[in-house]
Amino acid sequence: MKLLEQQGQQAKEAARDLGVCDTAKKDQALEAIARALDARREEWLAANREDVLEAEKEGMSRTMLDRLTLTEARIDGIVSAVREVISLPDPIGECIEEVTRPNGLRIEKVRVPLGVIAIIYEARPNVTVDAAVLCLKSGNACILRGGKEAIRSNRAVTAIMQDALEEAGLSRYCIQLVQDTARESAAELMHMNQYVDVLIPRGGAGLIRFVSQNASVPVIRTGEGVCHVYIDRAADLKMGAKILENAKCSRPSVCNACECVLIHEAVLDAFLQEAVPLLQAQNVELRCDEVSFAAAKQYAATGSILPATEEDWDAEYGDLILAVHVVKDLQEAVDFITAHGTQHSEAIITEDADAAAAFLHQVDAAAVYVNASTRFTDGGEFGLGAEIGISTQKMHARGPMGLKEITSWKYVVHGDGQIR
Amino acid sequence: MKLLEQQGQQAKEAARDLGVCDTAKKDQALEAIARALDARREEWLAANREDVLEAEKEGMSRTMLDRLTLTEARIDGIVSAVREVISLPDPIGECIEEVTRPNGLRIEKVRVPLGVIAIIYEARPNVTVDAAVLCLKSGNACILRGGKEAIRSNRAVTAIMQDALEEAGLSRYCIQLVQDTARESAAELMHMNQYVDVLIPRGGAGLIRFVSQNASVPVIRTGEGVCHVYIDRAADLKMGAKILENAKCSRPSVCNACECVLIHEAVLDAFLQEAVPLLQAQNVELRCDEVSFAAAKQYAATGSILPATEEDWDAEYGDLILAVHVVKDLQEAVDFITAHGTQHSEAIITEDADAAAAFLHQVDAAAVYVNASTRFTDGGEFGLGAEIGISTQKMHARGPMGLKEITSWKYVVHGDGQIR
Repeated sequence: MKLLEQQGQQAKEAARDLGVCDTAKKDQALEAIARALDARREEWLAANREDVLEAEKEGMSRTMLDRLTLTEARIDGIVSAVREVISLPDPIGECIEEVTRPNGLRIEKVRVPLGVIAIIYEARPNVTVDAAVLCLKSGNACILRGGKEAIRSNRAVTAIMQDALEEAGLSRYCIQLVQDTARESAAELMHMNQYVDVLIPRGGAGLIRFVSQNASVPVIRTGEGVCHVYIDRAADLKMGAKILENAKCSRPSVCNACECVLIHEAVLDAFLQEAVPLLQAQNVELRCDEVSFAAAKQYAATGSILPATEEDWDAEYGDLILAVHVVKDLQEAVDFITAHGTQHSEAIITEDADAAAAFLHQVDAAAVYVNASTRFTDGGEFGLGAEIGISTQKMHARGPMGLKEITSWKYVVHGDGQIR
Repeated sequence: MKLLEQQGQQAKEAARDLGVCDTAKKDQALEAIARALDARREEWLAANREDVLEAEKEGMSRTMLDRLTLTEARIDGIVSAVREVISLPDPIGECIEEVTRPNGLRIEKVRVPLGVIAIIYEARPNVTVDAAVLCLKSGNACILRGGKEAIRSNRAVTAIMQDALEEAGLSRYCIQLVQDTARESAAELMHMNQYVDVLIPRGGAGLIRFVSQNASVPVIRTGEGVCHVYIDRAADLKMGAKILENAKCSRPSVCNACECVLIHEAVLDAFLQEAVPLLQAQNVELRCDEVSFAAAKQYAATGSILPATEEDWDAEYGDLILAVHVVKDLQEAVDFITAHGTQHSEAIITEDADAAAAFLHQVDAAAVYVNASTRFTDGGEFGLGAEIGISTQKMHARGPMGLKEITSWKYVVHGDGQIR
């Protein structure tokens, strides 16, 4: 039997026991993991230094190198995050609904784990711990498949977590790492229907599209974000400019950042007068349609303003670049978002309650906002506690996914001899 | 553009308008459909007579012919079922949760449709109406792909429903039928990720396995049922025998029927003495393991008792056949169910509360029962109203799926200038 298939089988078995494990035991294992990560950090750091050295040799970009690199402070943060997960309520065993039927059957709908969750991600070694502990708390075994750039770091930290699991009396196979980082191992994982209950890809748009088009195991798509802010004719323009600045600039690399502003033609000049100086101060490059290009030029002291091409309307820049498009009314804004958005996060800025209601009702996205930044689409900000990703599909879970979103349910039916 | 792709595009557009349509308008369309089915029943019956004639020529089995055949009474039943769907509450627009965050953001979690639901099914023309109206009520457009045996019936009834949609002011593309019943059209539908939000296969185990192994669009597996009744050492044996008789015989062709009884060795003789006469009176064939074979022979007046083979433990007979297996304790019963069940419906018969609790906790299935028949796993019996299928997967929905189970949600966020 191939190693990966064996891992799948081990994960399935581990999931069976973990799924019926009580909260205290899971929390003990999480505490053992936190302690072990703290105590054995030098092993993890040493492995990470090797990964970083190798990546430097391969000419990895600065941003990517920064994501790959662990530091004492980052490990402190990761250890704290594990302890935060301990403090979250255990979703498993919760009675979601209960009904007694006319025939006397008492039916409880009880929350249970999904089983085995596979996660394919890229070069961030912190994801290995984040994902593992969220799966553990929610009673799911996990199979982690990180990028080849972080393989040494991931091996080291997985071994540390597995030892902690055993110390706490759980199977080390509750958390497993795919050892082979060749493309084939991802493809194999995508077809292990017998062992994998759900596959969550976390990473760039290319990875996510590849996985969701090719996997036969159930997939939750996450984190594709071409988000818009629409400045309505009835917008408070100062508020709109500040929200746009925040949505674009506060963390441009993340999926809930704004990539395109839509501006009602009636307020084009007035809005650009407010917004362009704020954006230019943050070195945002504007990619403008014809009408806004001419208008924006007037308010641009420095920085680059370029004419947009068709590609700009579908681009997830992940950078300090903003597409600018003028619309003649709210309907055109909604249609543009339908055509070019990724159903992630969409905002309208308006003081007109009817316009707000129409936008919120008609725009089809995981989160729709009136007068707030798209950057709030996040498990922590929504009050879900930790987050395993942001779903951009409608099946199973939509938007930020906390612990409850990686669970299922079963019906527990109590009778005293009922037949049908 | 190919016809099927065009249908996908039309469904997507129709779904957009239908998704924001109010309850009154959807109910008017449903009433128009009920009226049209009633008034134009002769068209549907005529088309069905052609299907039945053709099927007889092809040598279709009696059971299948019966499923294919429409009658005046069956159409009356279908029309009533449409009116029952009108009376169900509309799940769309329901505020599932609401929270105000410390920063003043008010976040509502609002129920929305999935979008476009594709359904692949076999030769039952009533499914065409059932599925279409449940999708319509829940704001989803549907693409229906029935079996080739029922194509004339399905064309006729789809045209009737589409005319009714238009009469009620909705797009006729809310309900569409795949015209081509070759295997290729199913395969194409399984890969229309751009247009299909979820695919629900309804039919035999072969169809369901083929779809879930090969589709790239999200799938909800339904209706694979290898269900067990476990007779515990502390069972009320008379109750157990009656429940087993009901679970096996009341409708052997359905997925929640029992296929295998597990008997604790301590009560083997006493239970068989109760159960065998009941089962033999219903002409149930028993396929027994070695121990139960010898024991059952004593109580069998007539009928066939055969030794089981390995294949029997995984068989979904859909017929008056029952596998019989002896276990030495509850744990062996749980392990046997884990190995051979399809995670559909599993029952324990016991008066021992601890044994019941252990079984209900450890058995991983959509519905777990104590002292009741597995036959209750059904949308109507669970109080969900109508049912579009019984999910045997853990993603998205598990167990009977009513209207809520074919919906998603979006977060609607109200701010007054919040930035992060």
